[in-house]
Amino acid sequence: MPDSLPPAITADTASPASLLHARYRSDAVGAPAQWNAVLSTLLAHRSIRNYAPAALPDGTIETLVAAAQSAPSSSNLQTWSVVAVADPARKAVLAAVAGGQKHILQAPVILVWLADLNRLANLGADRGQPVEGLDYLETFFVATIDAALAAQNAVVAAESLGLGTVYIGALRNDPEKVAAALNLPPQVVAVFGLCLGYATADDRSDVKPRLDQSLVLHRETYGVADSNPAIDAYDGAIQAFQHEQGIPAIPWSRQALARVAGAKSLSGRDRIKSVLHRLGFKLL
Amino acid sequence: MPDSLPPAITADTASPASLLHARYRSDAVGAPAQWNAVLSTLLAHRSIRNYAPAALPDGTIETLVAAAQSAPSSSNLQTWSVVAVADPARKAVLAAVAGGQKHILQAPVILVWLADLNRLANLGADRGQPVEGLDYLETFFVATIDAALAAQNAVVAAESLGLGTVYIGALRNDPEKVAAALNLPPQVVAVFGLCLGYATADDRSDVKPRLDQSLVLHRETYGVADSNPAIDAYDGAIQAFQHEQGIPAIPWSRQALARVAGAKSLSGRDRIKSVLHRLGFKLL
Repeated sequence: MPDSLPPAITADTASPASLLHARYRSDAVGAPAQWNAVLSTLLAHRSIRNYAPAALPDGTIETLVAAAQSAPSSSNLQTWSVVAVADPARKAVLAAVAGGQKHILQAPVILVWLADLNRLANLGADRGQPVEGLDYLETFFVATIDAALAAQNAVVAAESLGLGTVYIGALRNDPEKVAAALNLPPQVVAVFGLCLGYATADDRSDVKPRLDQSLVLHRETYGVADSNPAIDAYDGAIQAFQHEQGIPAIPWSRQALARVAGAKSLSGRDRIKSVLHRLGFKLL
Repeated sequence: MPDSLPPAITADTASPASLLHARYRSDAVGAPAQWNAVLSTLLAHRSIRNYAPAALPDGTIETLVAAAQSAPSSSNLQTWSVVAVADPARKAVLAAVAGGQKHILQAPVILVWLADLNRLANLGADRGQPVEGLDYLETFFVATIDAALAAQNAVVAAESLGLGTVYIGALRNDPEKVAAALNLPPQVVAVFGLCLGYATADDRSDVKPRLDQSLVLHRETYGVADSNPAIDAYDGAIQAFQHEQGIPAIPWSRQALARVAGAKSLSGRDRIKSVLHRLGFKLL
């Protein structure tokens, strides 16, 4: 890590302009007239991968789940659930599925967010009603979206309380092993995990830059004239960030393309369709 | 609408205990020791379906998209985009797809959130690199999750600025019509829309109750002893809410089961797999 690392941007102390600058490494998005603590919390997000052993205050998980349940839910179906895992042996199973990510062992709690069609399947069985709509790709899609909206509210709530988080998409490397470890019933699958805890005192994670808005935000219809200049600029911004963080500097375009090159680059997730079938999702 | 409708809960004025009570219609989740404006904003969420014609302040959409881009992204692939639609004729197309929801016509802006694998497909073509990983269900899953996390940050940001929102999942009733209206390239699909604007002065939307945490939050492993008492209580809570809102009171269990009864209850979305194939997603 370079000696000259600047202090990290934080929600409490940074100006709107500096938060927006950190997010884009440019001043292309100006600070708006109206600003507030919620926007500061959102803009200051960074993923934390170094956790202190400190436990969470009592009631924290319940507060985060209340925030999560406050997110919109498609047709109010509420097709998600969450398992809070604190047991070291169970965390070790999750870490192994995720390729040995040490922060899963460190963090006091891992929240595993579930697409859950089992609750409605059981309800239908109990009330003698058909639930064949659960068998369609659309309904799986709904459950995944519901879980993601809920989890993101929990992330925002956690960060507002000074907690750090990082999503663990790598639980999808082997959803059957996760299902066995958490005793999941049929038609329930882990969408992702979420580490939850306090960052270590020496953690230097900072705001990661993102693509220029010209690539992401469209007006009326989709269209980007020539994306190469903005992508080249972003490759530079990401490498500057990586250098500051003391991690290998690799252009985003190269890293992203390596990730989507083919089946072998998907860490086992190229098999997810057959895995989902075995977990009880027909995906019609 | 009943004459005796109580004033709606708001983030600015309600206590933590009253926000939690409104969310569950019970005191099962206690107010934690630590509280803040972010938690109030999250807990006070309600969907808005009555919009005033007032335009958004300049720069609002850019601020919301900056919040959205601050959400985590799987492997930083940033596989989403958003189209801001304000043109009345284009909004009318979206409203028609969504079965005529009038709030799509009323709201000054509709944000259409896209799962976008086209950006990486184009990048691969430009750099002469393979992108076969884009063809897997997993990568579509990633793009959908990325879009949902981003959109939810935008919702939280919007509500912090006093704006109202409501997701429009019904854009998935006919994604090809949406793609045509927004000129979407291949491997891009609308995950959902989001109405954005100011609620009318007489809008009385309030916090919608959710399922008891005992049904949603699990410890270490998944398990609910007997869900019927909590579901019966929730059926009562939802009907009390519906009565206050002046809408037909229907038990949640009946409404949810009707929604997932079968292909016919999915409003055309039982065909989404073949639609996605035609939009360029192989879903291997």
